[in-house]
Amino acid sequence: MKICVLPGDGIGPEIMAQAVRVLEALRTDGLAFEIEEAKIGGCAVDADGVPLPESTLALARAADAVLLGAVGGPQWDALPREQRPERGLLGIRKALNLFGNLRPAILYPELANASSLKPELVAGLDIMIVRELTGDIYFGQPRGIESRDGERVGFNTMIYSESEIRRIGKVAFDIARKRNRKLCSVDKMNVLECTQLWRDVMIELSADYPDVELSHMLVDNAAMQLVKNPKQFDVVVTGNMFGDILSDEAAMLTGSIGMLPSASLDENNKGMYEPSHGSAPDIAGKGLANPLATILSVAMMLRYTFNQEAAAVRIEKAVKKVLADGLRTGDIYEPGTRKVGTIDMGDAVVAAL
Amino acid sequence: MKICVLPGDGIGPEIMAQAVRVLEALRTDGLAFEIEEAKIGGCAVDADGVPLPESTLALARAADAVLLGAVGGPQWDALPREQRPERGLLGIRKALNLFGNLRPAILYPELANASSLKPELVAGLDIMIVRELTGDIYFGQPRGIESRDGERVGFNTMIYSESEIRRIGKVAFDIARKRNRKLCSVDKMNVLECTQLWRDVMIELSADYPDVELSHMLVDNAAMQLVKNPKQFDVVVTGNMFGDILSDEAAMLTGSIGMLPSASLDENNKGMYEPSHGSAPDIAGKGLANPLATILSVAMMLRYTFNQEAAAVRIEKAVKKVLADGLRTGDIYEPGTRKVGTIDMGDAVVAAL
Ligand SMILES: CC(C)[C@H](C(=O)O)[C@@H](O)C(=O)O
Ligand SMILES: CC(C)[C@H](C(=O)O)[C@@H](O)C(=O)O
Repeated sequence: MKICVLPGDGIGPEIMAQAVRVLEALRTDGLAFEIEEAKIGGCAVDADGVPLPESTLALARAADAVLLGAVGGPQWDALPREQRPERGLLGIRKALNLFGNLRPAILYPELANASSLKPELVAGLDIMIVRELTGDIYFGQPRGIESRDGERVGFNTMIYSESEIRRIGKVAFDIARKRNRKLCSVDKMNVLECTQLWRDVMIELSADYPDVELSHMLVDNAAMQLVKNPKQFDVVVTGNMFGDILSDEAAMLTGSIGMLPSASLDENNKGMYEPSHGSAPDIAGKGLANPLATILSVAMMLRYTFNQEAAAVRIEKAVKKVLADGLRTGDIYEPGTRKVGTIDMGDAVVAAL
Repeated sequence: MKICVLPGDGIGPEIMAQAVRVLEALRTDGLAFEIEEAKIGGCAVDADGVPLPESTLALARAADAVLLGAVGGPQWDALPREQRPERGLLGIRKALNLFGNLRPAILYPELANASSLKPELVAGLDIMIVRELTGDIYFGQPRGIESRDGERVGFNTMIYSESEIRRIGKVAFDIARKRNRKLCSVDKMNVLECTQLWRDVMIELSADYPDVELSHMLVDNAAMQLVKNPKQFDVVVTGNMFGDILSDEAAMLTGSIGMLPSASLDENNKGMYEPSHGSAPDIAGKGLANPLATILSVAMMLRYTFNQEAAAVRIEKAVKKVLADGLRTGDIYEPGTRKVGTIDMGDAVVAAL
């Protein structure tokens, strides 16, 4: 197993260090892997002038899986578009063809109070958002800002082909099959032809999955229903742009985005794994960041890319144990629990393994 | 004052009847107006074969303001795109140049329990979402579904010119000036050039409004922040697509979308006024629907189009009084209050005037 580790910016290096410790602790278990580290995002811009250096991409291509911390920070915000840290992220997704983005929104019982929703509405919440990640308006051409009739005009293109829709649809139906067999496809078919095709293809595909109940929801209604009654959802599948918005909304319903991992997969289950949260420049370097989302990303990696279900579950159980033991980083702290730093939290998970 | 009334489909006619009664009750107050009624949406398709008949548009053009109930229902869902009820809505917005959509999200103290958020996070919530309504990917060309390289491809165009951005920006800044002087502009500038221009123009425009504090937020973060801490927002301005999603999310935070009016204005404050909720076909014709959002839309009409602030406030106070008196339609009912139907609720508001 070849793993490419990209710590990135902000709190990225700190949280990644703990995730790597957890991975190392599994070596004793007979898991054999090699780790290679490279730069992405702002630190790569500083070192090499570009957010996704060729050498980084080469390492990532050669690896079976990529573990990413986070990218970005205010010091790179004023750079021209092509040099901004998030271009590194978009670039690696596209280059590795990581079209299948899995974003779980899970509420751990111990953290039920962290949600801004009433406890009875979110207790036991467990949604899987499947977001298409290499198409849509993120990558569509033509795009740009130009002068027309004497004024600036900005434009982008939302676009999906039926094969792109079908392959993400399959990922979502397959996941729904392993869960509660309910799949909700989100679109805006009443306005956008692009998403009319999305709905049509999902309906066609559903013929191959008679055991999964497919429903459809308009994106504005989905944004409402997530607030009103999030537990109505099992698996949600949607395009890149709507998925960006809805997966963040769903993550925030748990109140503990510092706990949520994510996976981005290609057609052969090669994947990039990263926490759902960002680089949190305000607390970077202070040893305060929550490493659990990154540690749980390691579990997702073992499950989806390496088919090591037992090892994945072992990590997830260790995380549950430290929560049950009352350990909390600042982002999930509440009175009556014990506030710890990044390294202490890593220590505790390693011990609980 | 010429008012064009478009009851529409589903619960539209029932709720509109109560709104018109409230309006009629103000005649005694010296308000002089003419009302003309026409068809839009599914009922227009049934009668004339199109969701926005020429005669309806002519009446709407001739009027100073339009009052709309709601459009749509399952019986028209299978129609070809151009005949679906919502095309009537999109058509009239565009034809009347109603680019400025104001969607308040207000939580009435009496309805605090209706929210799915914890009471302390939403008590006193009062956000105004300003959504651009005649541009963006809703109307951008090219668009369609066609065959390319042997497969179907769906595409739409997100597009804004600087003059379109500037005119909605002005509406938002002007409203912020009359409120708490905080304006948050929402975009996805880290990915979409179209919204990079949006941000640039908002920054340019802010030079004319030194007394308003302008901030910027990415749309995915905005979807999160609305859940996490909605009271951080005063006025939010965004494009048509993001505004569709965020205004519905914000409305649902109140838990009582049956209470929320909206206004859609052109450059001369001619406007169309409608409830934020839909046509609720499941309860149509049963006398159960909540008419308050439509009644409050009348108040918005008097304020924004006719400059009759006193009359607007009178309606708003009457609505507050019936809530304080414990009257509730089914959508906002809770034990300890009195459940009433659509007509009873209209009666109560008229009496409270
Ligand atoms: C940083 C940004 C480009 C990215 C996206 O929009 O995809 C992020 O928001 C995410 O969801 O991973
Ligand atoms: C019915 C639909 C076309 C419409 C929209 O998307 O604008 C509705 O959702 C709204 O927000 O008024």
